[in-house]
Amino acid sequence: MHLGVFVMGTGNHPAGWRLPGAGRSNQDLGLLKGIARTAERGKFDLLFVADGLALSLSDHPSYVARFEPLTLITALAGATQHIGLGATVSTTYGQPYHVARAFSSIDHLSGGRAAWNVVTTANAAAAANFTRPGHPEHAERYALAEEFVDVVRGLWDGWEDDALVADPATGLFVDPAKVRPLNHEGRFFSVQGPLSMTRSPQGHPVIIQAGGSPAGRELAARTAEVVFAAVQDLDAARDSYRALKARLPAHGRRPEELKVLPGVMPIIGRSTAEAREILARMQAFLTPTNALHLVSIRLGHDISGYPLDGPVPDLPFTEGTQGFARNLLALARREGLTLRDLYNVTAAARGHWVLCGTVQSIADTLEEWFTGEAADGFNILPPYFPAAFDEFVDQVVPELQRRGLFRTEYAGTTLREHLGLARPENRLAAATEATAAAAE
Amino acid sequence: MHLGVFVMGTGNHPAGWRLPGAGRSNQDLGLLKGIARTAERGKFDLLFVADGLALSLSDHPSYVARFEPLTLITALAGATQHIGLGATVSTTYGQPYHVARAFSSIDHLSGGRAAWNVVTTANAAAAANFTRPGHPEHAERYALAEEFVDVVRGLWDGWEDDALVADPATGLFVDPAKVRPLNHEGRFFSVQGPLSMTRSPQGHPVIIQAGGSPAGRELAARTAEVVFAAVQDLDAARDSYRALKARLPAHGRRPEELKVLPGVMPIIGRSTAEAREILARMQAFLTPTNALHLVSIRLGHDISGYPLDGPVPDLPFTEGTQGFARNLLALARREGLTLRDLYNVTAAARGHWVLCGTVQSIADTLEEWFTGEAADGFNILPPYFPAAFDEFVDQVVPELQRRGLFRTEYAGTTLREHLGLARPENRLAAATEATAAAAE
Repeated sequence: MHLGVFVMGTGNHPAGWRLPGAGRSNQDLGLLKGIARTAERGKFDLLFVADGLALSLSDHPSYVARFEPLTLITALAGATQHIGLGATVSTTYGQPYHVARAFSSIDHLSGGRAAWNVVTTANAAAAANFTRPGHPEHAERYALAEEFVDVVRGLWDGWEDDALVADPATGLFVDPAKVRPLNHEGRFFSVQGPLSMTRSPQGHPVIIQAGGSPAGRELAARTAEVVFAAVQDLDAARDSYRALKARLPAHGRRPEELKVLPGVMPIIGRSTAEAREILARMQAFLTPTNALHLVSIRLGHDISGYPLDGPVPDLPFTEGTQGFARNLLALARREGLTLRDLYNVTAAARGHWVLCGTVQSIADTLEEWFTGEAADGFNILPPYFPAAFDEFVDQVVPELQRRGLFRTEYAGTTLREHLGLARPENRLAAATEATAAAAE
Repeated sequence: MHLGVFVMGTGNHPAGWRLPGAGRSNQDLGLLKGIARTAERGKFDLLFVADGLALSLSDHPSYVARFEPLTLITALAGATQHIGLGATVSTTYGQPYHVARAFSSIDHLSGGRAAWNVVTTANAAAAANFTRPGHPEHAERYALAEEFVDVVRGLWDGWEDDALVADPATGLFVDPAKVRPLNHEGRFFSVQGPLSMTRSPQGHPVIIQAGGSPAGRELAARTAEVVFAAVQDLDAARDSYRALKARLPAHGRRPEELKVLPGVMPIIGRSTAEAREILARMQAFLTPTNALHLVSIRLGHDISGYPLDGPVPDLPFTEGTQGFARNLLALARREGLTLRDLYNVTAAARGHWVLCGTVQSIADTLEEWFTGEAADGFNILPPYFPAAFDEFVDQVVPELQRRGLFRTEYAGTTLREHLGLARPENRLAAATEATAAAAE
């Protein structure tokens, strides 16, 4: 089983920060370092940092004021030794050359622990921060993302692993036969390369994807090595897991080359009833107004005008409907939820699964999902930090270890090693070898 | 006196890495951390990391393989406590929103020690890495840079210092009256803002500039707080220093709001003759071929076809001629240098001043420049690391301290405090106040 933690200084629950002793800022480096060290104490595979490119003051408090993710995970790399470090960077508002360099650099600086969460930016307001006439359509964003990721991976292969010679006797610094341009010419990008950086410890930093739309799942099947799934129940999780794994062979990939980690917010009590009370205490801080606003953001539809105790409106799916929204709306239809029910589910964990229970029952459920082909592990969303995460690490993790489901020590040093992912071959080098062999 | 150090893992001299015991990679984090700690032991104001956006294998070895600067200085922030951390980022191939966020984030993560070295990228080869039809002309690059810096500084003022409330009792997370968009609409950029980040410890990270062309000097006079000058002798340094300071009042600035730090490569010997021998030993590693290549890069003209012992060719200045090249060509004309002389001067320190001497004579010269209105301090370019920098810190710095020219302890905690620069007022907040006052 693989475990990640979704790091938000104010807690994953939007009102988590209001509990006594909870972290009250996502810009508190001491708190964030503490979370990273706790995750490492719990032998987690990775920690994960989200991002967005436009501010809305009514969004989740950890989105309102936060560090830039690449610099944050670099700072956390210096405070840890083993744990993988995932940062979100958008393909819609960036340049592949910059993104390839930054992640390669962090992979070097962290000793092979970097991961890139590829997003296309759902929030149309980002366009106004980047001199753009408008936010690209969903399909266009995914077409661009596909090419963007290809270019980044190509740039990561510009240097063979042993290209840097630095022989003081001869003065040869780099073996020029082992450094190659990419010469990419595509629909969206023309990028020559190579980077002015050696190949990184992991060869390629790990690629994470979370999009749940059909285009997002296709991008994941083609390029992702970790998928953060937003699912609400075991059947949906199993369907989604199997569907995603089934897409891999068409891209020449084996099922084990992609790890599916559903997001889950564990609420731990001495009884399930107590856990539900803890959740209710946090939910009580939400007003219908701000909860409906958060749900509107997740659904991509303004639902603030609908009656709170009426049925969830029958909102149409479009090609651009986010995976979160698809799953939530399907859940609402299936279970006949009211808008109040939906916001109680959604506002807690931004559309992720909320699991109330005891240490034993939470471990039971995680085991059931893991052994039941619904998950390769989980992305843990503690409702608040540090106490709720400490509880998970100190109580649930040992129970998972006792059951033989989770590691008791890191066996490797890189994130790829933690995840059981192979180090990618160097495709530019392989292409050169193939050409040379054909010429013989 | 203010001191910076130009960090290059292989040493600032292009052949420094070939000496016994010298660092042989600019991607050795342990070495780079050691340099940062040595600089801090020497009470330096800042360390500085250069950058470029296209690889040439025949360039300086520390340019051939290096970390991405923003992630590198973030990693070095975690290994140090006082020293300022300057990273180079180009305005020609970036987005102000990304750059503003990254530096603000590093300023937070380092406790107020970030500095941005604004460059427009001289190397036209960068265009091929960024899907651009060509590299913009010099004047266009500087016009864009001016607007870019304005946007970044505006984004840094989006939050008042006390806008984050995070009151668990009331649930008020941010005071919305203290967060403002920028709403910039200019020739090159439309950026709404604000950032999703609180104002950083320094208010604005420190702005560094190094351009020596007329447009570069104008940009510096308007926006820079530190200038790295490339000068070869006292008269030229004094002229350049006075000319730059004289430009400030036109921009409503006082002379002390900009610190001029000429770059200098100190070569320390027990005698000046011994120092010259040390330099000659490194110069001997350069072949005319690679030295002429390095000089061609600096001059922006291919000079490899000219006779080595003939006069320096009379290359024309254009609007786009770099400051380095201007000073070098002026020096060559004034002193009747041959091409071999020029490459001996230029290849050593990339057009910066090389100062061979004893601890006493080097301290004398630095004092003469500092008290003679030619410098507010120096950007030190040790020829190799770690030993040559250790020598400077352990021998020259104490001599400067003994003379009362340099601090013996950090008095403040931020780079602005080290440099004696005021924390900038929040212009967006001031504009709002002015509007409110006018309405009364």
